[in-house]
Amino acid sequence: MKKIKVAVLGCTGLVGRQFVRLLDDHPYFELSLLTASERSAGKPGAEAGAPPTQVIRETSVAAVLASQAQVAFSALPAATAGPLEAELRDRGLFVFSNAGAHRMEADVPLLIPEANAAHLELARVQLRRHAGFIVTNPNCVVSGLALALKPLMAFGPDAVTVTTFQAVSGGGRRGVAAWEILGNVVPFIPGEEEKVVRETRKILGSLAAEHVAESGLEVFPACSRVPVKDGHLQSVSVEFAGPVAYEEVERALAGFTAEPQQLKLPTAPRRPVMVCPGDDRPQPLLDSHAGEPGRARGMAVSVGRLRLRGKRLSFFLLVHNTVRGAAGGSLLNAELAVMKGLIQRVRP
Amino acid sequence: MKKIKVAVLGCTGLVGRQFVRLLDDHPYFELSLLTASERSAGKPGAEAGAPPTQVIRETSVAAVLASQAQVAFSALPAATAGPLEAELRDRGLFVFSNAGAHRMEADVPLLIPEANAAHLELARVQLRRHAGFIVTNPNCVVSGLALALKPLMAFGPDAVTVTTFQAVSGGGRRGVAAWEILGNVVPFIPGEEEKVVRETRKILGSLAAEHVAESGLEVFPACSRVPVKDGHLQSVSVEFAGPVAYEEVERALAGFTAEPQQLKLPTAPRRPVMVCPGDDRPQPLLDSHAGEPGRARGMAVSVGRLRLRGKRLSFFLLVHNTVRGAAGGSLLNAELAVMKGLIQRVRP
Amino acid sequence: MKKIKVAVLGCTGLVGRQFVRLLDDHPYFELSLLTASERSAGKPGAEAGAPPTQVIRETSVAAVLASQAQVAFSALPAATAGPLEAELRDRGLFVFSNAGAHRMEADVPLLIPEANAAHLELARVQLRRHAGFIVTNPNCVVSGLALALKPLMAFGPDAVTVTTFQAVSGGGRRGVAAWEILGNVVPFIPGEEEKVVRETRKILGSLAAEHVAESGLEVFPACSRVPVKDGHLQSVSVEFAGPVAYEEVERALAGFTAEPQQLKLPTAPRRPVMVCPGDDRPQPLLDSHAGEPGRARGMAVSVGRLRLRGKRLSFFLLVHNTVRGAAGGSLLNAELAVMKGLIQRVRP
Amino acid sequence: MKKIKVAVLGCTGLVGRQFVRLLDDHPYFELSLLTASERSAGKPGAEAGAPPTQVIRETSVAAVLASQAQVAFSALPAATAGPLEAELRDRGLFVFSNAGAHRMEADVPLLIPEANAAHLELARVQLRRHAGFIVTNPNCVVSGLALALKPLMAFGPDAVTVTTFQAVSGGGRRGVAAWEILGNVVPFIPGEEEKVVRETRKILGSLAAEHVAESGLEVFPACSRVPVKDGHLQSVSVEFAGPVAYEEVERALAGFTAEPQQLKLPTAPRRPVMVCPGDDRPQPLLDSHAGEPGRARGMAVSVGRLRLRGKRLSFFLLVHNTVRGAAGGSLLNAELAVMKGLIQRVRP
Repeated sequence: MKKIKVAVLGCTGLVGRQFVRLLDDHPYFELSLLTASERSAGKPGAEAGAPPTQVIRETSVAAVLASQAQVAFSALPAATAGPLEAELRDRGLFVFSNAGAHRMEADVPLLIPEANAAHLELARVQLRRHAGFIVTNPNCVVSGLALALKPLMAFGPDAVTVTTFQAVSGGGRRGVAAWEILGNVVPFIPGEEEKVVRETRKILGSLAAEHVAESGLEVFPACSRVPVKDGHLQSVSVEFAGPVAYEEVERALAGFTAEPQQLKLPTAPRRPVMVCPGDDRPQPLLDSHAGEPGRARGMAVSVGRLRLRGKRLSFFLLVHNTVRGAAGGSLLNAELAVMKGLIQRVRP
Repeated sequence: MKKIKVAVLGCTGLVGRQFVRLLDDHPYFELSLLTASERSAGKPGAEAGAPPTQVIRETSVAAVLASQAQVAFSALPAATAGPLEAELRDRGLFVFSNAGAHRMEADVPLLIPEANAAHLELARVQLRRHAGFIVTNPNCVVSGLALALKPLMAFGPDAVTVTTFQAVSGGGRRGVAAWEILGNVVPFIPGEEEKVVRETRKILGSLAAEHVAESGLEVFPACSRVPVKDGHLQSVSVEFAGPVAYEEVERALAGFTAEPQQLKLPTAPRRPVMVCPGDDRPQPLLDSHAGEPGRARGMAVSVGRLRLRGKRLSFFLLVHNTVRGAAGGSLLNAELAVMKGLIQRVRP
Repeated sequence: MKKIKVAVLGCTGLVGRQFVRLLDDHPYFELSLLTASERSAGKPGAEAGAPPTQVIRETSVAAVLASQAQVAFSALPAATAGPLEAELRDRGLFVFSNAGAHRMEADVPLLIPEANAAHLELARVQLRRHAGFIVTNPNCVVSGLALALKPLMAFGPDAVTVTTFQAVSGGGRRGVAAWEILGNVVPFIPGEEEKVVRETRKILGSLAAEHVAESGLEVFPACSRVPVKDGHLQSVSVEFAGPVAYEEVERALAGFTAEPQQLKLPTAPRRPVMVCPGDDRPQPLLDSHAGEPGRARGMAVSVGRLRLRGKRLSFFLLVHNTVRGAAGGSLLNAELAVMKGLIQRVRP
Repeated sequence: MKKIKVAVLGCTGLVGRQFVRLLDDHPYFELSLLTASERSAGKPGAEAGAPPTQVIRETSVAAVLASQAQVAFSALPAATAGPLEAELRDRGLFVFSNAGAHRMEADVPLLIPEANAAHLELARVQLRRHAGFIVTNPNCVVSGLALALKPLMAFGPDAVTVTTFQAVSGGGRRGVAAWEILGNVVPFIPGEEEKVVRETRKILGSLAAEHVAESGLEVFPACSRVPVKDGHLQSVSVEFAGPVAYEEVERALAGFTAEPQQLKLPTAPRRPVMVCPGDDRPQPLLDSHAGEPGRARGMAVSVGRLRLRGKRLSFFLLVHNTVRGAAGGSLLNAELAVMKGLIQRVRP
């Protein structure tokens, strides 16, 4: 079958480059356009890790339309993402966005295929209103947290306390200055804690008519930046309504699989949640690339140091922030959309 | 009045050197002995930052007795601290120990002068049983946590969740290998979480006849090591039994003073808990030395990003792990003991 | 005597803030204006570490003239510094600039007061051509290197090989991304090596009529960035024309003093070159602040591990890049100009 | 043909673990013994990254003899390596040692197969005196430096100045404390500079009767430790007797191959010296694993920023310190010995 032409918008940033890397030789998709800001326009695709035949274009609706791309992967900065993604949707594009602009809109799925594949139905709601649709993936912290919480939902959690140790790559190419973070911890990331609360609750919510009814789970986040290159570590503590059994919880996490695994999506890891052996894991430097070698590398979330005391389960969790937490998550969403028939492999 | 002769046991480690630094020109105490392991015996005091006239002796009871020291500050490793400190007590010494060996013994005060000065009464209990006494200061994490919790006790906390970001100096001179921690976070410190629970509960407990009745406060710790040199950052979340008012909580923290401040102990900061202005503080690199310049530098605990939601108060806290969290805390304990008349400035 | 009114241009950067700090309570100078880019205009001076009464203005000639400042300290980015500093000179200002724009102009002194105080005569040359003058301080690497080479000039050096380990603060607030440098070394800093060669040769050159005849010393630099916050370490190897004696070389370095010391300039360290004891020094984290506590802190260059083999002297050198290597160096230049009568303490 | 049984002595350290990893599924060698200190004896081979069937034994001659190993790879600490390796040689073992103990002995080859394969003849000299032989690989810095200098020898170098930026893994598991090196550079590594001089001169020397006549090349090293995990970066400056042409030098480096490449030794990279494109390379984090994926990964030395001025060639060089600079170098030596017929694939 013919591959689907895709554009990567914002290809020169850390997330954009991951999109390019993950799309290399992809079974469903074929790269037909790379865009970036005016400053990078005209530069060779090699700047984004792409084959030498590609040239980077300036980001615009016209460039996307000219490329005949049917799908756009967006790693655009929040400010430009909002209007541009909406316009692309109006022009019939299927937009898979890592940007925050549309995540909380009622008919936009905020998707982690293992956690809330059903929410993809909202894309059909959009298709009744627009020529295309936008599907978003959550913030990098939530990409790991909500995924690990999903198998725990059966045990009736009331509240989650989470403290993050976020890698500097999460701030983008210029986001975190060496001068501020070397040998230091910065206990604040603007806007991050609000996202962790609302996005977690949307993902774990249930699909109602044309929107998601948020989960009532209480989320208490504390976000910080640490001098680590890749991999967001999280210290998580979950309070359940009643007592739970350690073995059952561990089994629920380690054995967790969902639609992406059943559908054998190309970028899906066999085990989306890996329970680490070893008493001092997961560690960013050792475990960020959890998942099978190849496409799924960096797509599994690692969990370790499970401790249960009464109704309280505590653990550490690690998610690769620019793979599962960004480009890889977005790509998995697109793969699910293809398999669910939302994107045909020939242009409509 | 004559100064009290003191020995520093284990003077070459990171904590030992802080003792030496803090004792320089101290108004109550005068350094009469430096000890360390056999390997350092005979070396000049300069190895521990002491004046050139001092020579380091091998740690032994005999060396302490020969020095005529009345007080021993112990920065010994746990294994040797236990029996040696007990024997020194039997020989009439007043031991102020940073080691963990005796902290949980019923008649040994585990002391933070601002939090539980009354527990020093246990030293008198010991004096009825031994020729001297042992007073301990808590683990470096607890030194900051219990101090910041003290002014919050009035609001009725039920549970505390704490995730630590601990500096490498907390592991001692050779404790943390560069190879393991550079660009990484290690989410486990052996034995640490158990200490955080039991020591916090003992400090916040109430003095009963000849022992401390532990506080019922639930403590859920998660301890990790980060690539930071000095200063243990902590993400704290306190659940109260009922609603509390933000202004009252903030005032309780920022305005908190206790006996060390009233007695104007030399090493006591004017404000033991400093509420940081700025929305991204406290940071280890910028705030570890909170407290007035001079003796109190590093003795105040910094608190920032106070957030209240319902019955839940969250904040970040920073404590200098080798000053307030170790040598400085121990010295403050000794100053309190002098002012309470437990140590006379002439040898009995 | 009345203090001289000064402006700090580009006050919010790392160097600008050092100017503000060093000017606090200065015996000759009084801060009358803070400027920065449009983005910071209107913000309180506290953003630059200044007293709360100050407000930051947008950088412009008009703002400087309105402030009645007689002296301008420039921490402007290279692009804006060139024309603006020239215009200020034309309007009668005495400009002390850390920017690179005018350093290599024939009649502009490139000054390290201990190394080439005589070159300040070029300011008088400028005064014959303009209403004011510009005096520059060298690049941060050269600020340390040329200072340490000065006392060695008597021994007849032919060539200098230098490899730098430059701190991230040298790249400015946003110059070095954490993502690139954490756990890494970047062996290139654009334009830096060229500056090291030409500026070292100008400083060590001799004053001819209205210009400097460059030194013929060969300089072979290799510049790199390391994950260190402050302090540029340099591995230096000097080849002399003939054999030299270790003791003489060491004495020349350790005993070196010059006009700033004789004139007791406020910011001058008593010993501009400190020879470190200890076999593993200087280290950025321990030695960057060499110089007496107070104004001279960070103004001395540390030198260690002196090794002589044949005609080759090797050593490590450390210079605080934003103090002696930038704001402090510039301020010392201004102090020298005052003492040399180039700036009167009452406005002409 | 049957594989040769080998022992890895000192298997739990950073170098020992690299030996184990590189020997996995090796075409010539088969792991028959893992040894370590008493503390690790009895632990599963997994502690060294070995298959679960292996158990770690305490290091001793008896253990090696019992294992029927014909070859011993030694990653022992210097103190124990000396006598133990000599005794193994007397018992007929072929010892390939990463330890420094025997490197400078007259009849012991100090070998980099691409640089001085001919020196392996010294092993035959040993075989006339002992039942077996010892072959050593150089210090980690020299492993890269002498390899890159080899193709430059044709141009007649007189002197080499080298400043190293050495990774913390070079100090072994406990060698470098996080506390000392975080955000710092330590400009001294005990004994290192002496090794760089004498080992480089031996390797680049010429084989005379039963010993090596040292090269007269002058070597001026300055060694430092930086907060980097793996990969020793070196700033090198070579003075030639006369002028050289840039293109010729570059071609000599980039095109360099030698016996290991001709013999297609399993661990040999196709290009032992890789000339990096890009103006800011090589960087430890990006380039330490130079060499083809698979066995040769980390076996190539990267060279970048070639600059020629007069008779002076300067460049940066990067060598993976525990692969080419230790275990990989030693293994390549053993592969060469096999192909040269010094080790038969059936036990004598």
